[in-house]
Amino acid sequence: MTDGPAGTGGARRRGRPSRTDSADGPGARERILTAARAEFAARGYEKASIRGIAKVADVDPALVHHYYGTKEQVFEAAVEMSLAPALEASEGVLEGGLDGAGERLTRFVLGVWENPVTREPLLAIVRSALNNDIAAAVFRKLVTRQLLRRIAAEPAVPDADLRAGLAAAQLVGTVMLRYVIKLEPLASAAPERIVARVAPVVQQHLTGP
Amino acid sequence: MTDGPAGTGGARRRGRPSRTDSADGPGARERILTAARAEFAARGYEKASIRGIAKVADVDPALVHHYYGTKEQVFEAAVEMSLAPALEASEGVLEGGLDGAGERLTRFVLGVWENPVTREPLLAIVRSALNNDIAAAVFRKLVTRQLLRRIAAEPAVPDADLRAGLAAAQLVGTVMLRYVIKLEPLASAAPERIVARVAPVVQQHLTGP
Repeated sequence: MTDGPAGTGGARRRGRPSRTDSADGPGARERILTAARAEFAARGYEKASIRGIAKVADVDPALVHHYYGTKEQVFEAAVEMSLAPALEASEGVLEGGLDGAGERLTRFVLGVWENPVTREPLLAIVRSALNNDIAAAVFRKLVTRQLLRRIAAEPAVPDADLRAGLAAAQLVGTVMLRYVIKLEPLASAAPERIVARVAPVVQQHLTGP
Repeated sequence: MTDGPAGTGGARRRGRPSRTDSADGPGARERILTAARAEFAARGYEKASIRGIAKVADVDPALVHHYYGTKEQVFEAAVEMSLAPALEASEGVLEGGLDGAGERLTRFVLGVWENPVTREPLLAIVRSALNNDIAAAVFRKLVTRQLLRRIAAEPAVPDADLRAGLAAAQLVGTVMLRYVIKLEPLASAAPERIVARVAPVVQQHLTGP
């Protein structure tokens, strides 16, 4: 909302965007991404605009295109930034192989959604993905590339890719009903009760008969 | 789009709304509901308006309030109208008790979503529910009242209401990833392959250990 104390160029940037490296260089690149994430989260994919993102980042719209390309590509970069902490944490989940993966995946997903800091950007992405085909394609690509491909790469399990999708469906549905629709008693149940019921089902999808 | 041949008052209604029974009576009531369903489907809960619905139905906005109350109540009536065929069909699904309910529920849900005529209004409701708290409350109330309460009413099963919610989560997540996000290979898999994998899981939620 207000300028931090660090911004020596802050006042100047509020006028016509400067073209110096200090205003449009690496700092601007990061500022654009942060602004994009905030705009997509607040407005959704369709209503957010390159112009609005540029305004929040205090740069020329052309610079947004220069660094990130089309609106779709800006969205993809913003989604990747939002998912980064979750994806980093998910490395450990899948490293252990499919034994016990049902419980590790369930705990991981609930952990990410129980925390408002990680929940909010994810919620914005999911809402955008459900409302817009381009956003859905970006979401699909990231989920497939980062998460499902590794599960589905287990050659020992037939139908591994369909199984991974249905395990994801159980987790996505649980998250939607618990955190978005707030269906009771699912919404208020202790996480451990959810884990106790969902983990075996996810495991059955991945490695069951 | 165009007036049907039946409307003797059609041309007159396009001017200032008439107050006679023939224009605002039972026909108007139904016309408003159809218009509401179309408007909510096209614009989502937040963007749809009583004024817009009244315009499509060719009535005075006051008549919309008169018949259906607040925007929230109009939405609820429109959702009930959209869900009616699905809910009617679901009676048989639950009549048979919990034995085999996993497969009957899974086949029923896939059947409703495989058919574009029943899929489109449901998709509009789900999108609205994920984007707006009031729409989410309406969705929650209807699902709980119409579907889950009957499953959860089985006294023999402990945690029946939580189990019903998690069974719904598997189905909702499967529908989201298959029909909305279009995640492969889930999106293109034959319905029978999905039933074979999802039905036992839904059954496990309802009656498993």
